[in-house]
Amino acid sequence: MQTNAGRDTLSARDTARQPIEAGDPVNDSRLFRRCLGLYGTGIAIITAEMEDQRAAVTVNSFASVSLDPPLVLWSISRASRSHPLFTNGKRFAVNILASTQMNVSRHFSSKVEDKFADTSWSPGEFGSPLLHGCLAHFECETYAQVEGGDHTILIGLVRRASRFDGEPLLFAQGQYSVAYSHPEVSPAPEVGRFTPETATEGTIIPQIFEAHHLLSAVFDEHRHAEGLDISVARVIACVYDMPGLKTDQVARATYLGQRDTEDALATLVERGMLVSSADGQLVLTEAGRHRREAIRTRWQNFQKDQLEGIPEADLRATLRTLSKLIAQNRPAK
Amino acid sequence: MQTNAGRDTLSARDTARQPIEAGDPVNDSRLFRRCLGLYGTGIAIITAEMEDQRAAVTVNSFASVSLDPPLVLWSISRASRSHPLFTNGKRFAVNILASTQMNVSRHFSSKVEDKFADTSWSPGEFGSPLLHGCLAHFECETYAQVEGGDHTILIGLVRRASRFDGEPLLFAQGQYSVAYSHPEVSPAPEVGRFTPETATEGTIIPQIFEAHHLLSAVFDEHRHAEGLDISVARVIACVYDMPGLKTDQVARATYLGQRDTEDALATLVERGMLVSSADGQLVLTEAGRHRREAIRTRWQNFQKDQLEGIPEADLRATLRTLSKLIAQNRPAK
Repeated sequence: MQTNAGRDTLSARDTARQPIEAGDPVNDSRLFRRCLGLYGTGIAIITAEMEDQRAAVTVNSFASVSLDPPLVLWSISRASRSHPLFTNGKRFAVNILASTQMNVSRHFSSKVEDKFADTSWSPGEFGSPLLHGCLAHFECETYAQVEGGDHTILIGLVRRASRFDGEPLLFAQGQYSVAYSHPEVSPAPEVGRFTPETATEGTIIPQIFEAHHLLSAVFDEHRHAEGLDISVARVIACVYDMPGLKTDQVARATYLGQRDTEDALATLVERGMLVSSADGQLVLTEAGRHRREAIRTRWQNFQKDQLEGIPEADLRATLRTLSKLIAQNRPAK
Repeated sequence: MQTNAGRDTLSARDTARQPIEAGDPVNDSRLFRRCLGLYGTGIAIITAEMEDQRAAVTVNSFASVSLDPPLVLWSISRASRSHPLFTNGKRFAVNILASTQMNVSRHFSSKVEDKFADTSWSPGEFGSPLLHGCLAHFECETYAQVEGGDHTILIGLVRRASRFDGEPLLFAQGQYSVAYSHPEVSPAPEVGRFTPETATEGTIIPQIFEAHHLLSAVFDEHRHAEGLDISVARVIACVYDMPGLKTDQVARATYLGQRDTEDALATLVERGMLVSSADGQLVLTEAGRHRREAIRTRWQNFQKDQLEGIPEADLRATLRTLSKLIAQNRPAK
């Protein structure tokens, strides 16, 4: 096999690795979904109104297409109840969610009958509902529809674009996320890079940023070593702490979507870690409970190892500093 | 205007806000790009090989389409040199970048002639080049092509999907980013939620996570108050520190793409903060230098305010703890 893997290049560390899993997605749609989930995305709620009927769907298939003319696209499942309304309609709005809108995303993904009744919104200039609190709105006319397997791709001509203050809500690795500057870029242009050797009182906050990033990356490796991706780890922790829940309750408690929760539960059943009773109550098997306890022990040992050798007095002082910083920046309820 | 904004709902805080800017994207493509940039995305490099010619383009327009059949899509500019190769070809591969591959993204976005020569890769089972070190690969046959204004949308039938260990590289708010669990979800299933009142030695690491999130959000508000988005703030800091650079040098130094850098520079010129000499050297005006100094002062005051009232001895102990955690988790060079 022709390969450049051995060459001493800018990507020398990117040698060929073994995949965790690989295959034909026709035979394994869960594998395909897990692979797709590795592409992080924002979250958009698409809204439309036609003859006093309103529809909204939550998607992460939004993408930009063209600047001239200004086009964007997204896809809707042909099985969706809202499919006829969007495909017969002549316009829609794309509402890009902000990091403060996790509850809005959850609300619009739920089975509530009239989602607009409990939501703050107003009609846009082109007639589609615009949700308040979003980061951006794209008010569109339907430009083209393209059949795409079990979905229809809707291409919109953007008639009006607007943006607001805030940070984006993201969906990455199967969970709601927020984005921070990549650690190899300075965390903020004001901060600059530093090394522990140059630490002064003026670097406590940048050091908190860097410590967070490094600890987070190192602990992720521990979780991978346990053979669990984050959605499976979250589900196993939830069922351990609250045995007897049903699938939709686990989906809400873990902040995973219904589909990711179902996939994670199926993985756990396949591996003999979970059983589901006749009435749908979920309980871990002994193997499942052991795995959960192994992860918790790993986390406790990780903390102990990390803090080992730091004098007790320093740990207490660090806790006081961090607690004060947290208390004074917590948003008021 | 019909509105539900005043109602006491789950979104009561999402009252209608004034947009920072809004308009018809036909008249202002930079406004349109700034709005599009608020939708966070992963980064994908699309590769293809035809008659010993290889092509690669870096995109953030990747999206999933369908599970049955397994379809994905992305868009390529009709002005791209690689447009003919991708639209005449019968297959391509989607390489989803990992957080460790910022250098790969920069390399493939640069003007280097043969991008594959300095990159570690091998041909996939279906003939398209697969880059090493990625988070996922989708090996595709071209399923359909759709004209989309100044771009062509390519829809791929996925013949093989594979995934690897790692975290995704993201592009959000005009910069390379990494994702962390949303703070309203526990940072990791192992950690759980805590309050300052329950702080113990066992909570130092979760406290670092929470302090980072809160400080980061509060400082973002300061930057917005200065009227600068993050890409403009980064460019102004770069030109201040290194006057006389040219556009492509600023793009590399700031880790912004060429287009975002050009947009940020144009904004600064419009606002009278920057001038460009005949040979393309960039220099801040006095207004530009003042703005840069105002941001730096704001950052210094922010740090001072945050740490005010914490005893000197506690600050030193905190620094020792953080420096140790950073030093022992820094990857070896």
